[in-house]
Amino acid sequence: MTNKYYETAQTDLDFFFKPQSIAIIGASGDAKKPGGRPIEGLLTKGYAGKIFPVNPRYERIAGLKCYPSVIDISEPVDLAIISVPAKLVLDMFRDCVKKKVKAVIIFSSGFAETGEEGNRLQQEITDLARQHSIRVLGPNCLGIINIPGSVMASFGTIVNLDPVLPTSLGFVTQSGAYGVMVYARALQQGVGFSSFVSVGNEADLEFSDFIGYLLEDPNTKLIGGYMEGAKNGSKLRKVAERAAELQKPILLIKVGRSSAGSRAASSHTGSLAGDDLVYEAFFRQMGIIRIETLDELTSFAILHRSARKAAGRNVAILSASGGGGVVLADKCEGVGLNVPELTGDTKCRLEQVLPSFGSARNPIDPTGQILTEPTLMAKCMEVILKDDNIDMVILNVGLNHEGADVMVEGMIEQYNASDKPIVFVTTDTTEDPESEKLVNKIQNTGIPLMFEGYHAVDAMEKLVWYQERAAKIVQKDKQVDKSSEAQLPVKTKQLLKNSKNLTEYQCKQLLKAYGLPITQEGLATSAEMAIGIAADIGYPVVMKIQSPEILHKTEAKGIKLNLASAKEVKDAYHDIISNAKNYDPQAEIHGVLVQEMVGGGVEVIVGSSRDPVFGNAIIFGLGGIFVEALKDVALRIAPITRVDVEEMIKEIKGYAVLEGLRGRPAANLEAITDVILKISRFVIEYDIKELDINPLIVTDKGAKIVDALIIRN
Amino acid sequence: MTNKYYETAQTDLDFFFKPQSIAIIGASGDAKKPGGRPIEGLLTKGYAGKIFPVNPRYERIAGLKCYPSVIDISEPVDLAIISVPAKLVLDMFRDCVKKKVKAVIIFSSGFAETGEEGNRLQQEITDLARQHSIRVLGPNCLGIINIPGSVMASFGTIVNLDPVLPTSLGFVTQSGAYGVMVYARALQQGVGFSSFVSVGNEADLEFSDFIGYLLEDPNTKLIGGYMEGAKNGSKLRKVAERAAELQKPILLIKVGRSSAGSRAASSHTGSLAGDDLVYEAFFRQMGIIRIETLDELTSFAILHRSARKAAGRNVAILSASGGGGVVLADKCEGVGLNVPELTGDTKCRLEQVLPSFGSARNPIDPTGQILTEPTLMAKCMEVILKDDNIDMVILNVGLNHEGADVMVEGMIEQYNASDKPIVFVTTDTTEDPESEKLVNKIQNTGIPLMFEGYHAVDAMEKLVWYQERAAKIVQKDKQVDKSSEAQLPVKTKQLLKNSKNLTEYQCKQLLKAYGLPITQEGLATSAEMAIGIAADIGYPVVMKIQSPEILHKTEAKGIKLNLASAKEVKDAYHDIISNAKNYDPQAEIHGVLVQEMVGGGVEVIVGSSRDPVFGNAIIFGLGGIFVEALKDVALRIAPITRVDVEEMIKEIKGYAVLEGLRGRPAANLEAITDVILKISRFVIEYDIKELDINPLIVTDKGAKIVDALIIRN
Repeated sequence: MTNKYYETAQTDLDFFFKPQSIAIIGASGDAKKPGGRPIEGLLTKGYAGKIFPVNPRYERIAGLKCYPSVIDISEPVDLAIISVPAKLVLDMFRDCVKKKVKAVIIFSSGFAETGEEGNRLQQEITDLARQHSIRVLGPNCLGIINIPGSVMASFGTIVNLDPVLPTSLGFVTQSGAYGVMVYARALQQGVGFSSFVSVGNEADLEFSDFIGYLLEDPNTKLIGGYMEGAKNGSKLRKVAERAAELQKPILLIKVGRSSAGSRAASSHTGSLAGDDLVYEAFFRQMGIIRIETLDELTSFAILHRSARKAAGRNVAILSASGGGGVVLADKCEGVGLNVPELTGDTKCRLEQVLPSFGSARNPIDPTGQILTEPTLMAKCMEVILKDDNIDMVILNVGLNHEGADVMVEGMIEQYNASDKPIVFVTTDTTEDPESEKLVNKIQNTGIPLMFEGYHAVDAMEKLVWYQERAAKIVQKDKQVDKSSEAQLPVKTKQLLKNSKNLTEYQCKQLLKAYGLPITQEGLATSAEMAIGIAADIGYPVVMKIQSPEILHKTEAKGIKLNLASAKEVKDAYHDIISNAKNYDPQAEIHGVLVQEMVGGGVEVIVGSSRDPVFGNAIIFGLGGIFVEALKDVALRIAPITRVDVEEMIKEIKGYAVLEGLRGRPAANLEAITDVILKISRFVIEYDIKELDINPLIVTDKGAKIVDALIIRN
Repeated sequence: MTNKYYETAQTDLDFFFKPQSIAIIGASGDAKKPGGRPIEGLLTKGYAGKIFPVNPRYERIAGLKCYPSVIDISEPVDLAIISVPAKLVLDMFRDCVKKKVKAVIIFSSGFAETGEEGNRLQQEITDLARQHSIRVLGPNCLGIINIPGSVMASFGTIVNLDPVLPTSLGFVTQSGAYGVMVYARALQQGVGFSSFVSVGNEADLEFSDFIGYLLEDPNTKLIGGYMEGAKNGSKLRKVAERAAELQKPILLIKVGRSSAGSRAASSHTGSLAGDDLVYEAFFRQMGIIRIETLDELTSFAILHRSARKAAGRNVAILSASGGGGVVLADKCEGVGLNVPELTGDTKCRLEQVLPSFGSARNPIDPTGQILTEPTLMAKCMEVILKDDNIDMVILNVGLNHEGADVMVEGMIEQYNASDKPIVFVTTDTTEDPESEKLVNKIQNTGIPLMFEGYHAVDAMEKLVWYQERAAKIVQKDKQVDKSSEAQLPVKTKQLLKNSKNLTEYQCKQLLKAYGLPITQEGLATSAEMAIGIAADIGYPVVMKIQSPEILHKTEAKGIKLNLASAKEVKDAYHDIISNAKNYDPQAEIHGVLVQEMVGGGVEVIVGSSRDPVFGNAIIFGLGGIFVEALKDVALRIAPITRVDVEEMIKEIKGYAVLEGLRGRPAANLEAITDVILKISRFVIEYDIKELDINPLIVTDKGAKIVDALIIRN
């Protein structure tokens, strides 16, 4: 990563995660108060650095010397927590500036989230911070905790909870209370955190900065988060690219999918919500795993920490309950995993091991036989795990029966002898003491264990999806796009720069100059000229009015199709001009476009529009009914690569149409790919606000832009 | 219900659920053995009837007199359990016949599920049972338990579990082991069962019989089940109709959605899996709630037992965590519930109650203020519950803070003062003793309480969906379909009966005779005749070869479109005849159909095909690309009503096309409805195996069948 801001943030953020000393401004002896809880947390969790309570009303707090002001502290202060009413925060912050504090957390609320005045106050603090190179977390946040460093710089109740090992999950949240809930429940489910950051109003440091920091943290193996909206899309993109490089998955609960949700999210911390469809596409493109529930986060974390990789999507299900096996198989195929029937050697060897009434087909059903033959599960595992066609295994058995300990022993042995992802699903919870012992034993050996089959399947699918995505992202970083090195000629650039509204003809000339394929055509300013152009092109032709003022050509009766002779072209020319003048007497008329009539092929659309968060979004879909009735479009954020475009094309529901229905030839996908790639570069290079190619007509031979609209800004 | 079989089953089944006496054939003193566990269960759970262990090897078992044979019992035996090896079962069953036992449960496996021989043995027992009017549950089953009657006629471990109140869930399962898992886990989640039935191989009594019985059981308020396939679709349909009448929801985990799942399901208990899409449609049509996980069952049961009804889909979310509220709002809209913004009086009054930094918009955010003002939640509830525009409420708060007891007190009061469905979501589980006390208090007052927000939302949506469906099913039972009382004329009936392959012309004549709208057309057997017909219809016309042997008319070059003159018709006639003869010299040629050329309009398809389980499935969709590329069809099981058809039409993705795109007029939905309704009656009345109308062309004025194919059998 060479991005300057990102690098700066990286080292600056050490003062939040690994401060040598912490001052708490607005310190309190009451551990339930925001100014008291961090002190208690730092002391009880064994923070090794120095703690400086600041409060003019006390001499000592929690046995520590208390300072009237942060300025009175003689030693250097790395991190200051400000926990005083909003109106006092600016003064306290000025003290921090004087004291040359490196990093400040502002717990206090009453800033941008409350309206105009709070916003001004927040801006004043931010300006001051930027001026003096102090980094700020908050305001209106719960702060930060870093478990390995025992940095308990938060007033959330989570400060009091005992850490769970391994401390591998980094969590960043735009909602303090929701984050606390996630943290507490995840611990209950045995998932431990490395760090927790509540970002509040993000006056200075934002969500992506902390994700970026945690990616480089060796303790953090995966990252979770709750997000209402990103402040800066390109920063989030850089972070996601880095995550793919490091193979550290990011799982985000991104809210605002619904109208009520986005209404609430935008009023909640005042973040820019943006269009959820764009987020959805961006996450998919960048390998960010979008989740909706805590269970998805914890089950993924449990599977991920086994540090095993799946070679593919083939799952074997070994279930002591036939019904349970079928339910799991349905769920697997429902999320896009395969449950292939076992064949050849594997089937043969399984049949030797299984009783005659068992099933070796996958799901594999060892039946009640496991009760009388406790080593049967291990025997089955041994056979299955050797099958190269099986990438992952789900084990589904009860634990509260005789011989369960022997059974588990054998299963653990098989688990350890393999490097494939394996999940143990058992519905026997820890309520029964014998089962509890076995559950603990399984967990202690590191086998991912879950109590709900569907969570196991979800986690497996996410793991495979993530591996596939991350590989593609890394691969495409290396991929050089040579599809075109086109540059617009100077004259064309001028046109783009100076025109307010471009006509269709101008747009297409621009695109042509950039190397894109357009229809054969010419602009006629007289009927005679039109006839000449038509003759050059060959009949039939299409004619369209060209005026920057007339955007709706059909409405203005400014289009004539299927003109087959000089006579028809001549009449059409006069009709079109006269219709246009009737429609808008003031309109500046450039002339009439005479264009070849493209027959056959499939109509597709390629477009781009600028998203306020992420920049140029590129859209692809089939034209006509597909886009109008089905909203069937694929979306990505520019810049995009060939890999992205190939996915876009295959992702639309109407893909079968491009493959050629009823024996029609398949559309030339290479030609579509080329157009989309060039458009994605063009809109960035020339800062295009909106571009609309509708339709691009694609045959088996190639593609032609039939109509286009470009809006500069 | 007037169905004879159903009524019979009803009283017969009393001997399973309320027997006065139970014999256990193959009784054992070891409570872990299948012949021992029911005895232990009956004794320890306080079964009030008589228990007769049967085993020639023992004098006494578990303190009870043991009989050498069931025949030796002097008193009457209502229910006998047979738990002996498969090869002895037939003899034991013969003894039961002699003893005039009313009902028999066969635990033993080794029957139809093992292959041909087992199947024969099973059939022999079934025949004997039918002959002597003995009803049988099993073989290869875990048996039955009925909690209120303490009838523990099962060898599942669930016999040992303590019942949970209220005992309102009846459960029927085609997988014993999976059923046991569901039972045990549901109890852990506080959901109590009235009865549990493992149906095994369904040699005599089947899945639907038990559902039917439980519907009439006053203890049972809702029914759950695990299903691999229905033996008899029409019986399941009757049961579902009765359930809607009684307003008792049925929730089924129906497996076999995936290829691996259906492969396993069919091999598992040998049930006919059938096409999952047909099940899916049938469930939707009949108001059966399809579920995939145990959590869906238990959360629905918890909500349902509060016995409250929602007037609509509008939800208010009152969440102490802003983020949590947004997550819930997203989830609500994601499943089709609304989270309307609050307005007017409600908003005004909420704003008076809430702090200035709270939000009254929905989700309602009372903020951390609830910590200092414990009555705030109740105050908000009071305002929201009075809003007629709000149908349901979700409360989302933590319980482990000071003042939580006062807060809960007030919330319970508000809950009791309302009759709207309300769910309490708290992420504070019972691990903290203070929270546990409050959780218990909430649960004891009957407030539905859940630990996961998404389960609460799912349950609410299912409740509303169920209410809507049940109302429609009951309403449509009363609805008389007067759309047509058409009968085919005798001659036409003969045609249908005697023809093997019908030509397009014959099919359309049949449909016309039944009152369906077809194109203007006539069958020409000479060029002159063709010209005459064309003149009557008016140009342009379409001409098509008519031969029972030529099914693919296009392939045979047997179709000509857009013929505009007598000359063209004449030439076309000769061409078509000669092409047909070239294509198949043996083909019997009826002539050439001369048909009006229908222009404009939308092409739709209406079809029917016979499903082995459910009978005639009716299919509707848009023609062309929609059905070919998108498989975009709606499906129902005949008979269907107007309500069903209206839903079918709106359900397809391409519905927007029927509504009229780009200012085109909307298609005449009434005309489509009429065609579908008549077709659904026609295929039943004349026992049609397959019928395909493709296309039916629909304009704003009406609809016309342009091509049709009927296959009798």
